[in-house]
Amino acid sequence: MIKLTAKIIDLESEEHVVILHKEDAKRMGLQSQSRVRVNKNGKNTTAVVKVSRTLVDEGEIGLVEKIVDEIHAEEGKRLSVNQTGRPESVEHIREKLEGKELSTHAINEIIQDIVERRLSDIELSAYVSGVYSQGMNQREIKDLTQAMIDTGDKIEFDKHPVFDHHSIGGVPGNKITLLIVPIIAAAGLMIPKTSSRAISSAGGTADIFETLADVTLTTEQIKEIAEDIGGTIAWGGAVNLAPSDDLIIKAEYPLRIDPYAQVLASVLSKKKAAGAEYLVMDIPIGENTKVKSLEEGRRYARDFVSLGEEIGIETRCALSYGGQPVGRAVGPAIEAKEALRALESKDVPSSLIEKSTTLAGMILELGGSRNGKKEAKRILKSGKALDKMKQIIDRQGGDPEVSSEDVEIGKYSEEICSLEEGYVNSINNDEIIRIVRAAGGPHCKGAGLFLEKKKGDKVEKDECLYRLYSESKKELEEAVKVAKHLKPLKVEGMILEEHPRLQKVY
Amino acid sequence: MIKLTAKIIDLESEEHVVILHKEDAKRMGLQSQSRVRVNKNGKNTTAVVKVSRTLVDEGEIGLVEKIVDEIHAEEGKRLSVNQTGRPESVEHIREKLEGKELSTHAINEIIQDIVERRLSDIELSAYVSGVYSQGMNQREIKDLTQAMIDTGDKIEFDKHPVFDHHSIGGVPGNKITLLIVPIIAAAGLMIPKTSSRAISSAGGTADIFETLADVTLTTEQIKEIAEDIGGTIAWGGAVNLAPSDDLIIKAEYPLRIDPYAQVLASVLSKKKAAGAEYLVMDIPIGENTKVKSLEEGRRYARDFVSLGEEIGIETRCALSYGGQPVGRAVGPAIEAKEALRALESKDVPSSLIEKSTTLAGMILELGGSRNGKKEAKRILKSGKALDKMKQIIDRQGGDPEVSSEDVEIGKYSEEICSLEEGYVNSINNDEIIRIVRAAGGPHCKGAGLFLEKKKGDKVEKDECLYRLYSESKKELEEAVKVAKHLKPLKVEGMILEEHPRLQKVY
Repeated sequence: MIKLTAKIIDLESEEHVVILHKEDAKRMGLQSQSRVRVNKNGKNTTAVVKVSRTLVDEGEIGLVEKIVDEIHAEEGKRLSVNQTGRPESVEHIREKLEGKELSTHAINEIIQDIVERRLSDIELSAYVSGVYSQGMNQREIKDLTQAMIDTGDKIEFDKHPVFDHHSIGGVPGNKITLLIVPIIAAAGLMIPKTSSRAISSAGGTADIFETLADVTLTTEQIKEIAEDIGGTIAWGGAVNLAPSDDLIIKAEYPLRIDPYAQVLASVLSKKKAAGAEYLVMDIPIGENTKVKSLEEGRRYARDFVSLGEEIGIETRCALSYGGQPVGRAVGPAIEAKEALRALESKDVPSSLIEKSTTLAGMILELGGSRNGKKEAKRILKSGKALDKMKQIIDRQGGDPEVSSEDVEIGKYSEEICSLEEGYVNSINNDEIIRIVRAAGGPHCKGAGLFLEKKKGDKVEKDECLYRLYSESKKELEEAVKVAKHLKPLKVEGMILEEHPRLQKVY
Repeated sequence: MIKLTAKIIDLESEEHVVILHKEDAKRMGLQSQSRVRVNKNGKNTTAVVKVSRTLVDEGEIGLVEKIVDEIHAEEGKRLSVNQTGRPESVEHIREKLEGKELSTHAINEIIQDIVERRLSDIELSAYVSGVYSQGMNQREIKDLTQAMIDTGDKIEFDKHPVFDHHSIGGVPGNKITLLIVPIIAAAGLMIPKTSSRAISSAGGTADIFETLADVTLTTEQIKEIAEDIGGTIAWGGAVNLAPSDDLIIKAEYPLRIDPYAQVLASVLSKKKAAGAEYLVMDIPIGENTKVKSLEEGRRYARDFVSLGEEIGIETRCALSYGGQPVGRAVGPAIEAKEALRALESKDVPSSLIEKSTTLAGMILELGGSRNGKKEAKRILKSGKALDKMKQIIDRQGGDPEVSSEDVEIGKYSEEICSLEEGYVNSINNDEIIRIVRAAGGPHCKGAGLFLEKKKGDKVEKDECLYRLYSESKKELEEAVKVAKHLKPLKVEGMILEEHPRLQKVY
């Protein structure tokens, strides 16, 4: 054990690292990737060692922000530093890589170590690799879900039942939450919805709703607003519900892997921690979505329902069409605008209304309605959903008098037109997302696109396919470049091929 | 693309990282774990982004030493920095995690990206996890070996044939290379041996021989000395032979995994790159070694022989007893001393002589000898091996007049005695290593231990089991504490159990 002086190092790092001077490290027999326990008046944490000769002086220890917060370290104060071994959970990660079934205890240890940031990036990556490579059985997934719930906060509602909704994503333009939540709340049921920001998409529900109101709520605010007016749309990342999920995603994202077991546990642990008792899941199916086939979707549906049952959430799943964006708008502000138009009973694509009211209807039926979809449509048309939405916006610090006309989208825009006459044969979701990101989304809320044509639509040569929006001229130009390169909308004749191709005429 | 000013950051990191200022990162749409291409006058490299507000100013880019070397960056000079995607090889890593067979092209890409440090720690960990979890078939292993050879230097000898020897490790005290190399060279064959330093052991061959001579040789020196006097013992880490191996080990070590395919490829790629044409492998078998069972050892032997054949190395394997340390000495200096004593024909454990001459004999037989072991013993006894050793020491900058008496071991020492009378029933290799490491090894060359008793030996109560050595009083005390806690030598009565345990006498 040695005493070192804290030096705060501003380096963004999910990994818990400390920086030791070369000489101190040598003296302690430590090297890069060794692990130490850092202690300050009884508060302690584990970190991975990095070694430097210049970032810290001898006798100093460099601490990243996460560690400073955790042990309440102060610049210049003394800390005691001990060498410590790798956590026991690394052995369990190895067992998973070997294809072994993990015990409840092993799973608890892994998740605990992830939440307390005791695992290095290398170890965390091995964990997600193991779960991806070897999978988990139903018992393991249940334990994993429970461990993820137990290592975070829970919202305990005084009112019941608690309804919830979730889409497992991959489809751009999926602003349905902005319709579903006010419909359900207007029907007198309680739906405290926590949503994510975009990780790989053009805008998560939290990014979209943030253009209308504040989404950074505490668990107390979520509880209070939901119990009061029935609905809320909050950013899940601001609350500590199943916090292991975000840490695990940090390792999955660079590898573009979504271990099946982890997807199930991730969704249901967040929902359970958020207090959900009844849940309707939207599982979009399509080539460029998370779930590629109906078969895979059915497997998810079956497993969500049975895992839900095991942890006490009554779950229904809808397999939805994910072959192209939902509605016509993609991007934070422009999606909020389209959702408001739907609530205002203005002209919007019927597919958006159909999808939203079908899912809202399923929730209403879980709540006792005989014909949920019909009821959902009635509430939407009556303007009660719009009123409820304004109430939610008001309670979350937005302007309750906002109308779809007020929502500002990027002032720079350009049309992308068809190079030939024909029909829109396909729309590539991934490419649509890449274009919106090139235009500045989801960081710049005004970035987005509006599809003038969707699948099956007839298009003339030089007719507009979609319109791009950006807050910056430079980013718009970049997005146009990307759009022209990718060509996400394929336009072809109605007849794609004739067989046999070469008909010989004698 | 933006221009940033280089700032050299001294941070030991195998991962290729650059540090960007928060504002620059935001402007470029980058975050932690994003990847950039850094370019300086046509020299360029890829790196993983870390973000800070204080380590670099706006307009600066922090570079770790590895990158500075690679692109010849200079403090204060301008570099161009581009965002770039994740390398294609990450897709192949994912395929391996999914259990797919990798193409030759995919394997080449992965190894190339590892050597050029294009993979982040997370991605590298996923690679070793995938190979560990899903394995590789013979074709993949051959391609992997070839890719590892092709991405580094090769030693091209003018003299032939080239003999070599390798132990896959895990047994402490395995100083046999210091006997084998001089025996083979004294017999007139050429054996340019490259050895590793300790990773997880108490001392690698390079650590041991470094107490007698310099082991940091260039490939030119290895070639010159071996062609000149027949033998050399060099540190493999100082030369660029199959450099991917060390980078891969950096991810394996924290996870304590040794993917089977990777072990085969690792050993034979290094040997092939070092010019080996004939190879004798030592595969120690024992509970606390890398290979736990005879069965596993046979599988390794079979696969080493056939992989060797495919890449052009005639390979023989010996499965050796790894149930306790080889000889009595464990630790860098004390092992060098024991090896010299063997060469000087002084009293040493016969097991050390037997093992060394058996393996040396196998090499001699590959070289045409009829009774290799007998010849090896003859050369050892004749003093010719000692003369050759002195020649090697001389050529590698050591004192050729050195005798075993001169080798200094730690001046602080303490006996660890038996708490009871009985027989040494087992010796735990791992625990022996941990004790020597606690005493300061392999960093402090004088740290080590000497086994007064080995398996099967009778011991009285309070009789010495082994003697600990250290260069520092504090570390000795620490090692004694560890030793008394671990008790690596189990002393029990000759009769361990009687069955049935409870004999009822009527």
